[in-house]
Amino acid sequence: MTSPIGKTVLYSYWRSSCTWRVRIALNLKEIPYEIKPVSLIKAGGEQHSNEYREINPMEQVPALHIDGATLIESLNILQYLEETRPHRPLMPNDCIKRAKVREICEVIASSIQPLQNLTVLIMVGEEKKDEWAKHWIKRGFKAVEKLLASSAGKYCVGDEITIADCCLVPQVFNARRFHVDLRPYPIILRIDRELENHPAFRAAHPSNQPDCPPEAVK
Amino acid sequence: MTSPIGKTVLYSYWRSSCTWRVRIALNLKEIPYEIKPVSLIKAGGEQHSNEYREINPMEQVPALHIDGATLIESLNILQYLEETRPHRPLMPNDCIKRAKVREICEVIASSIQPLQNLTVLIMVGEEKKDEWAKHWIKRGFKAVEKLLASSAGKYCVGDEITIADCCLVPQVFNARRFHVDLRPYPIILRIDRELENHPAFRAAHPSNQPDCPPEAVK
Repeated sequence: MTSPIGKTVLYSYWRSSCTWRVRIALNLKEIPYEIKPVSLIKAGGEQHSNEYREINPMEQVPALHIDGATLIESLNILQYLEETRPHRPLMPNDCIKRAKVREICEVIASSIQPLQNLTVLIMVGEEKKDEWAKHWIKRGFKAVEKLLASSAGKYCVGDEITIADCCLVPQVFNARRFHVDLRPYPIILRIDRELENHPAFRAAHPSNQPDCPPEAVK
Repeated sequence: MTSPIGKTVLYSYWRSSCTWRVRIALNLKEIPYEIKPVSLIKAGGEQHSNEYREINPMEQVPALHIDGATLIESLNILQYLEETRPHRPLMPNDCIKRAKVREICEVIASSIQPLQNLTVLIMVGEEKKDEWAKHWIKRGFKAVEKLLASSAGKYCVGDEITIADCCLVPQVFNARRFHVDLRPYPIILRIDRELENHPAFRAAHPSNQPDCPPEAVK
């Protein structure tokens, strides 16, 4: 699973929302990258192999090999891409607006996704897992909707796509997987609809990944 | 709970590890601030009041009123302080080192703290909550220790204090609250010891907060 310096390699799982965030940003910034699929379900999860643990000690995707380094944690990777590839910016210039972008990212990345990811749901147990996931997604989306009410333009913050949009769209997909009623969140729904056919978002979609099983393609 | 533009106000709870991160950074950067205590336990939690929900729709601490805006989410606030108050820097200049700082922050802020915070433990239930919290802290610390093995100098990343240290010290305190055996994490322990008597960390400690109940002061 090592890769030569110079080639950008994304350790990815088709349905991982955290990896999806990074795929969108790489596509938007037109950074060429190779995907190395890591199956989170095959043989108890390839992310727990000794080989992959050397790449990401959290035993999760994504990990990105870039510029001779291996980076983990999706928001960190998004920020690294922004710092090193400022063309096609995904952050506003204004400091308060930048903070508003990070607020939305952090609510999703700290208070929604970690509570409904696969590892946690296994601990919660088969019987309770759907209600558990729904509860945290609804709680988080209520707050995100409120934040968007004062920050959104065409997208999450103003009229340009930012890393907040890279986080929102995959979380909406997860919400649908858990059958969350999205009608109480009209701004979230509007932004999701705005972006669903954007080529960079489309190409990053789970159903367009090389490791997406044929039966999951809609 | 409103405050005039110009005054920096931190909505804080003495034992909140997320707020503690921000208190450390404010102290290190010598930014004067006023504390408005928000009790997370009194009357079912003041963070759920209508008044506070207007300040932070996530109904959590911290929130920071600064520069005429109200910001939420602790990592976001730390990054805002760094962008707007670059004196006494809490981030390295080198982009890869910056990424290494954010990795440690994000493991703690996304994969440890959210799984052992009060709101989640209430959902987990009295009987299982201690084992649950321990499980996620140990899993996260194992990864943090591994990251530190290649990044740490005197502190988390190199020999200067960064926002990673602002996140690590409060999480070690939480680990002790849940009686996690910390001996498997010697680098974490060494850095925590290095910082425990630093004046900025000391002043931010729960036991030095105005809302710390007298019986909790050690």
